[in-house]
Amino acid sequence: MDVKLRAARKEDCREISRMVMELAVFDKMPDQVKISHEELERDGFCQNPLFECIVAEVPEEHKSRGFAVVGYALYFYTYSTWKGPSAYLEDLYVMPEFRGKGIGKGLLSKVAEVVKKKGCARLQLSVLEWNTNAQNLYTSKGAQDLTVSEGWHAMRFEGQHLDNLAGEAPKE
Amino acid sequence: MDVKLRAARKEDCREISRMVMELAVFDKMPDQVKISHEELERDGFCQNPLFECIVAEVPEEHKSRGFAVVGYALYFYTYSTWKGPSAYLEDLYVMPEFRGKGIGKGLLSKVAEVVKKKGCARLQLSVLEWNTNAQNLYTSKGAQDLTVSEGWHAMRFEGQHLDNLAGEAPKE
Repeated sequence: MDVKLRAARKEDCREISRMVMELAVFDKMPDQVKISHEELERDGFCQNPLFECIVAEVPEEHKSRGFAVVGYALYFYTYSTWKGPSAYLEDLYVMPEFRGKGIGKGLLSKVAEVVKKKGCARLQLSVLEWNTNAQNLYTSKGAQDLTVSEGWHAMRFEGQHLDNLAGEAPKE
Repeated sequence: MDVKLRAARKEDCREISRMVMELAVFDKMPDQVKISHEELERDGFCQNPLFECIVAEVPEEHKSRGFAVVGYALYFYTYSTWKGPSAYLEDLYVMPEFRGKGIGKGLLSKVAEVVKKKGCARLQLSVLEWNTNAQNLYTSKGAQDLTVSEGWHAMRFEGQHLDNLAGEAPKE
């Protein structure tokens, strides 16, 4: 099957938003999704976009459930004080009926190609402990599990805790 | 002691670069640091900066080893497809002789204040498993350890592995 990987356009945001929710369901955290396709349009397709995205598109005759966009990789640029410009892959998703065809691997490689051209020394991402399929894909391509090898833990401030913390900032 | 927290200026990059190395030594990975103060100047003080930074400055009479800038918090903006604009705290550091005075907590709160004003719903960071002092600061302020609570692992492509991955990208 002829799968086309291309940069996402503003018009793709409805499809991306649908797949964001499908991925959250897969991750067993569907109630976490609070943003809509309008917010993706605003944040990703403005003067200084907050993210970039590559989508996987299949020909009309192969589309599933009415959709021709069957996967996506959403990433953004970060910074390492040790290595300089870097990138972070926020989401990588392929619809279940299109898995096992190398689309996920293609999206991942495409992101690596794009961010390397932009001068990034690193591509990082997070994976759930029970998602061994994803872990196997990443480790087979040489990714290092930093949580295991160096003992890094991810931490997050959110909601009331973030508000409280901000409220405690020293005044001028 | 009167500690001033303020946005970093280009002229602070030598001091920030020195403290980046001090932090890497503390983290037991000093050989990982590959960037210089010139690169911090270029990347953080251009048209579209790749990061922002807040420094802690002490009065002349309190300075240590000749330095008046004794701590820093370096962060950048990220994106969550679940929550929208977010932020990531890359480094938080206070020189050993100035610890225990609330400077680290002040820097952390200041970052929370700044990124909340910019509309971020989340502030994330990574902490080493053995660094219980840092973990205690974060959890005492309500941070959630995502590695423990949700099972997220951090993964990284770098060097030859990133090159190989990019080289495998499907051609047009």
